[in-house]
Amino acid sequence: MSKHYNLSDIKSLEKTFRANLINSVSGYKPANLIGTIGENGVTNLAIFSSVIHLGADPALLGFIQRPVGADSHTYKNIKANGVFTINHVHQDFVEKAHYTSARFDVNQSEFDACHLNAAFLEDFAAPFVQESNIKIGLRFIQEIPIELNGTILMIGQIEHLFIEEKSIEDDGNIRLDMVGDVAVAGLETYYKVEKFAQFPYAKANKMPDFK
Amino acid sequence: MSKHYNLSDIKSLEKTFRANLINSVSGYKPANLIGTIGENGVTNLAIFSSVIHLGADPALLGFIQRPVGADSHTYKNIKANGVFTINHVHQDFVEKAHYTSARFDVNQSEFDACHLNAAFLEDFAAPFVQESNIKIGLRFIQEIPIELNGTILMIGQIEHLFIEEKSIEDDGNIRLDMVGDVAVAGLETYYKVEKFAQFPYAKANKMPDFK
Repeated sequence: MSKHYNLSDIKSLEKTFRANLINSVSGYKPANLIGTIGENGVTNLAIFSSVIHLGADPALLGFIQRPVGADSHTYKNIKANGVFTINHVHQDFVEKAHYTSARFDVNQSEFDACHLNAAFLEDFAAPFVQESNIKIGLRFIQEIPIELNGTILMIGQIEHLFIEEKSIEDDGNIRLDMVGDVAVAGLETYYKVEKFAQFPYAKANKMPDFK
Repeated sequence: MSKHYNLSDIKSLEKTFRANLINSVSGYKPANLIGTIGENGVTNLAIFSSVIHLGADPALLGFIQRPVGADSHTYKNIKANGVFTINHVHQDFVEKAHYTSARFDVNQSEFDACHLNAAFLEDFAAPFVQESNIKIGLRFIQEIPIELNGTILMIGQIEHLFIEEKSIEDDGNIRLDMVGDVAVAGLETYYKVEKFAQFPYAKANKMPDFK
């Protein structure tokens, strides 16, 4: 049985129910920790489920910044410092990663509060997460305001990649399951994953014989 | 062992290897089919891994449109028709969904070529995927050009949601595993998923006792 919600049903939903429903309905999201450092020298770490691939050459990733307020330490640090890191979340530290979303004081580092280790690598001026097997260092390139709702598409170019060697296949694909990566749905539900299918580049003149 | 790539390493990578690596490195992505209809009356269906949550109220989703060319039927149909659908991909039709990415003639429908059924629901002017247990009807609201690489952030507002009832939890979260949703990594690797953790809304004064 299918439940139908139309535009006015969606508008009338209770606020938390709607937030959970609409946050789930886009499908699985990646779980990443964004690492920055403030002008006060305090490191910051925050979980984001909105990191998105924008292009391979130049290698660009984006993420959606919620409307900026007093607590938007990630945004402010990126604007001040020009660099940030994106670090994959694995099964074995998913709870610590989740709790970086709590509202900490600007002088408290989420690395300390959530018992994760900051790593400074290759003289890059933002902290990586030592526990993460896939660490990305990015230079902030552009912010694109989404005026409809006050969010911002933040764009960075990849300057450093640290990837567990055994997860890189000969063709460049990364086996995310081999490093224990998790997926998120909604705001707080985490999924473990397992590879089950791989298909070739699709060509119209080489279609499989679908049943 | 961690493999390190810096900016110049990334630039020098062989093209397909780089595409696979950089498309994998953002983490898991949702697998969705976007359904449209052309001015010629031909339905179109295309798999996208770039659908992203933008906001719950108003309920906005986006996706990244690659640089527009002669074959960008999805983009052209949305611009001409003003509406589109997003339909989740499940394990039992993932191969059919993958093959919608082949380059078909403008007069051929991917629904036919890939043996998926178009459903027209609630007088909505774009085709849904009948096989999908989570179907979303959206009105095109805005396109935001990303000039860095010629891609476009396409934004739609949700006007219709059809969700398998048993997957909706009391708090509005959707159990994506209960409808067989898959995740994608890179361009062609599909993962099945299983829920393994859920945590409460994080508060700094209610931290767990991390080991």
